[in-house]
Amino acid sequence: MKKFVNDPASFVPEMMEGLIMANPDKLKYVKEFNIIYRADLNPADKVPIVQGSGSGHEPAHIMAVGKGMLDAAAPGNVFAAPPVDFAYECLKLMNSEKGVLYIVNNYQGDKMAWEMAKEMAEAEGIKVGAMVIDDDVAVQDSTHTFGRRGVAGNFFAIKACGAASESGATLEELVALGNKVNDNVRSMGIALTSCTPPAKGEPIFQIGEDEMEVGVGIHGEPGRRRDKIRSADEIVEEIFDAVHKDLPFQSGDRVALMINGLGGTPISELYILYRKAAQLCEANGLNVVRNYVGEYCTSLEMAGASLTLLKLDQELEELLAAPAECPIRVF
Amino acid sequence: MKKFVNDPASFVPEMMEGLIMANPDKLKYVKEFNIIYRADLNPADKVPIVQGSGSGHEPAHIMAVGKGMLDAAAPGNVFAAPPVDFAYECLKLMNSEKGVLYIVNNYQGDKMAWEMAKEMAEAEGIKVGAMVIDDDVAVQDSTHTFGRRGVAGNFFAIKACGAASESGATLEELVALGNKVNDNVRSMGIALTSCTPPAKGEPIFQIGEDEMEVGVGIHGEPGRRRDKIRSADEIVEEIFDAVHKDLPFQSGDRVALMINGLGGTPISELYILYRKAAQLCEANGLNVVRNYVGEYCTSLEMAGASLTLLKLDQELEELLAAPAECPIRVF
Repeated sequence: MKKFVNDPASFVPEMMEGLIMANPDKLKYVKEFNIIYRADLNPADKVPIVQGSGSGHEPAHIMAVGKGMLDAAAPGNVFAAPPVDFAYECLKLMNSEKGVLYIVNNYQGDKMAWEMAKEMAEAEGIKVGAMVIDDDVAVQDSTHTFGRRGVAGNFFAIKACGAASESGATLEELVALGNKVNDNVRSMGIALTSCTPPAKGEPIFQIGEDEMEVGVGIHGEPGRRRDKIRSADEIVEEIFDAVHKDLPFQSGDRVALMINGLGGTPISELYILYRKAAQLCEANGLNVVRNYVGEYCTSLEMAGASLTLLKLDQELEELLAAPAECPIRVF
Repeated sequence: MKKFVNDPASFVPEMMEGLIMANPDKLKYVKEFNIIYRADLNPADKVPIVQGSGSGHEPAHIMAVGKGMLDAAAPGNVFAAPPVDFAYECLKLMNSEKGVLYIVNNYQGDKMAWEMAKEMAEAEGIKVGAMVIDDDVAVQDSTHTFGRRGVAGNFFAIKACGAASESGATLEELVALGNKVNDNVRSMGIALTSCTPPAKGEPIFQIGEDEMEVGVGIHGEPGRRRDKIRSADEIVEEIFDAVHKDLPFQSGDRVALMINGLGGTPISELYILYRKAAQLCEANGLNVVRNYVGEYCTSLEMAGASLTLLKLDQELEELLAAPAECPIRVF
């Protein structure tokens, strides 16, 4: 296994300890429940926003904890939903009179954990809002999902809701805002390689030396088809077309464009993809107001990338431009 | 070849075009000489700082172009020094009455290109300062190097000199500052996999499924030895020890600690390495004042990482803390 790892069972907590040690003034860690949260937060000041899905997608979501982004994260093990009690303890820790919002991607395990935690918290009088992201246009239903999967578009929901929460938005306003992001964001990804969860010790799927998986999920779920690897430009044309048609985006739209690396693809290649994606936006009359090139939601060391488009309005533009402080670069 | 690429011959210019398209207000590109430079720069205002080495190490160095960092970069093809005329045109473009400083890592090809360009520019009355980084403690002399290689420690020279230049430092002061950084910075890396330059189409070296290269160079140059992969903590112990002893760092030193990914290693693993490195700093009495976990100087999609320690004084601490704006996250 070509990984820097000690005991695979301690992969997640050791990663989180490293993150805390690198940010001793900004982040705190509750090891018992694997919860990371903002050191400077007073939950009474705002509606705290939390997330907890499987690990292995870093920087999502533990490195998105910080002012103007997430207030806490309670991740599970690699590609595994958090235990219900982790999610429940996270909601309790973030308990605020203004309520707490959780944002998760659309996977059955994550949704179930947080829905149960929400019920438990509500039974104690905690007001909990829920927000589910399903931006992946590749397939309807999937290995771990009914409906569409949630992938890198989640970043935009966190960024927008995080900024709005800092400005005093209510829980109801944040849920509506998160839904607006989800209604206007679309993604699709391509994998060139598989990846190896530390505890499994072998790749989660097999793929030929000359093959790619078109529309891959971030846990290696099958996409639309297996195909021979094509040129970078041809690949972007296909995923751009799928994303563009789906909303559909229209000439004159102002958009945010993200090229997200899946973990094993160097940033040089991401900029080659960005080049073609930006050309296609221009050719289709889309005005790229903000762009994001880098790793936001990965699949361990998978070689691959995804393209995300978000249709903007004035409110979203202002929220994306608002300052934020976390280990991910958010501009 | 598991890469997003069109024609391998256009890998570098397409990557640079993508970077320019993502930063249209901040960066400009001279395609003929493959020079990227700050759109907002008036070379008369300061001593411009430039760099040009082989590509394939992104974000180094083209994504380090921006206010408070590099003013221009003239990279060569993947793992190849820039042609002399690219370096020469870069010096001419950045020509300032205050002089121009170039910073390169210690590889024969890069040094030769910039020394020749310096002579040509000086013959036209341009004042040129030179700064060579050789922070890699792994080996003395190497495939492309007499003496030690330069690796991720280069980032600290760029950051310090970039900040000092913005504050009005002279060319002579910047050369002295860069040398101070180089005198106080030490690095060493480990590779778990090889990498594949697009034009070559096959890995630059072979390595077994259970092997690692201890002290690898950023072009795949051999290190100290080939060994069986060990645990993350054991790996960090070895490279920390090599780096720590070399200066030597001493109890009470204030340091910057960098864990740099070589391109194919996900950030989750880098934080696992950071955890142990920070523990070893504490155990050895080193006070980690600033830390950097991410990709700074890579080798395409190589799985691997390097550890860099920089001994700080008040001047360096202030320069590292100074604001900077470029596509790399610099804090």
